[in-house]
Amino acid sequence: MICAMKLYRLLDKDSRTTYAAEADDGTYRRINGDIFGEYAVTNAPVQAREVLAPLAPAAIFAIGGNYRSHIEEVHASFPDAPVVFAKAITSVIGQGSEIHLPAVGPDHVDYEVELAVVIGKTCRDVPAESVGEVILGYTVANDVSARDWQKRLGQWVRAKSFDTFCPLGPCIVTDIDPSDLHLKTTLNGQVMQDASTAEMIHSVPQLVEFISADLTLPAGTIILTGTPSGVGEARSPQVYLRPGDTITCEIDGIGELTNTVKEKH
Amino acid sequence: MICAMKLYRLLDKDSRTTYAAEADDGTYRRINGDIFGEYAVTNAPVQAREVLAPLAPAAIFAIGGNYRSHIEEVHASFPDAPVVFAKAITSVIGQGSEIHLPAVGPDHVDYEVELAVVIGKTCRDVPAESVGEVILGYTVANDVSARDWQKRLGQWVRAKSFDTFCPLGPCIVTDIDPSDLHLKTTLNGQVMQDASTAEMIHSVPQLVEFISADLTLPAGTIILTGTPSGVGEARSPQVYLRPGDTITCEIDGIGELTNTVKEKH
Repeated sequence: MICAMKLYRLLDKDSRTTYAAEADDGTYRRINGDIFGEYAVTNAPVQAREVLAPLAPAAIFAIGGNYRSHIEEVHASFPDAPVVFAKAITSVIGQGSEIHLPAVGPDHVDYEVELAVVIGKTCRDVPAESVGEVILGYTVANDVSARDWQKRLGQWVRAKSFDTFCPLGPCIVTDIDPSDLHLKTTLNGQVMQDASTAEMIHSVPQLVEFISADLTLPAGTIILTGTPSGVGEARSPQVYLRPGDTITCEIDGIGELTNTVKEKH
Repeated sequence: MICAMKLYRLLDKDSRTTYAAEADDGTYRRINGDIFGEYAVTNAPVQAREVLAPLAPAAIFAIGGNYRSHIEEVHASFPDAPVVFAKAITSVIGQGSEIHLPAVGPDHVDYEVELAVVIGKTCRDVPAESVGEVILGYTVANDVSARDWQKRLGQWVRAKSFDTFCPLGPCIVTDIDPSDLHLKTTLNGQVMQDASTAEMIHSVPQLVEFISADLTLPAGTIILTGTPSGVGEARSPQVYLRPGDTITCEIDGIGELTNTVKEKH
């Protein structure tokens, strides 16, 4: 029997960063070793002072237009291959941290719930049928995007890389099947996105094969797999993140990633 | 008096990676400390077994369309702001290493000589007038690009991030004025690009201010500042890198970055 494990990166009561696994009773048990190498879950309990982003990624790749419903709502053309873009690793924050509206573009900041693949082993040229060997697990991502800069520059990395624009969490779940997970965004209690990863155009194995072709993915790379319909900019009237908002991205079997929104930093 | 220093990252005769400064007589002198912190040049000579890329970057940002001559040759529209894109840090190679034509797109691989800014201190929101405080120096980059994938995906990161697609080197030069440096590309002895950084639309200080706005640049970030006209795809007939080619990107005051081209890996 293979059991899915929930791996948390925590600040313990002595303010040390540690990985821990969630036990059946909801408590944390310390992990010894390296989650990107050899590791073991111990019985030692961990008192969590803070839940951190589940990893400090080595690289972040993301996919545009991987759900038909989102392609249609933004009137984009249907891609013949996964549209890969990047986010800066410095944009990562964890569960409970604040999303800051950037001073250079505070008024068109949008949310996107995404299933994030965590690459566990440095790899290249991974065939779709072998991706299980290089995937450590999955987490929830909010691909926060400044829509004004996204359109103005055409290339998306800046619009999606401002500090705090990549909430990740709350944990990495190992050994789940990513092919039909329910994912949802709630803004101030109102459901904004509600879909299944079964709607993806390019599956997780196809994406890892595509991105790793002739391109080395270091252990700790994450791949955001695209967002379904319901983003703020495509709504009528349009909705953008405002100071004081609470935004929750959630995937069944992984958990809830909740962040508040702050004016600027 | 402020003297420009040439910082090399070398494999010494014992295969240890070390930084060294080039002395007036062309020999290397070992550097103690951290070039991104405190460091000192010693009198100890270093025998270089190999010249490595001058750094393993923390992040790579690059600018599209920063020379009018290149915008015109590719018939792009004139951007109203620097078009920022990213390259994967895993694409970096050094002086003398081979550029591999990727198996998934070997036939439309192009060169682009660029002045690369090396950020020496982690920073954010750097005003143009203060960029000198965060810049360690400059190196030469070849922004190798698979033009077929660049057009097909629209987002450029994959087309510019295949392994070996970011030659950097040969060294980092401190304390030079980047505003009017001669830059040149030679392919198998034939001059393909020949221009001055004075032709940049957005200057180095403007670029650092723009990219660092609300976005943390870790020490060791490099910023590629765009390429002038003369790229292979815009020529008539078009020119793409082929196995056996030798490509040299060169900037006066920094040096020559020469790489050979190999079929695939």
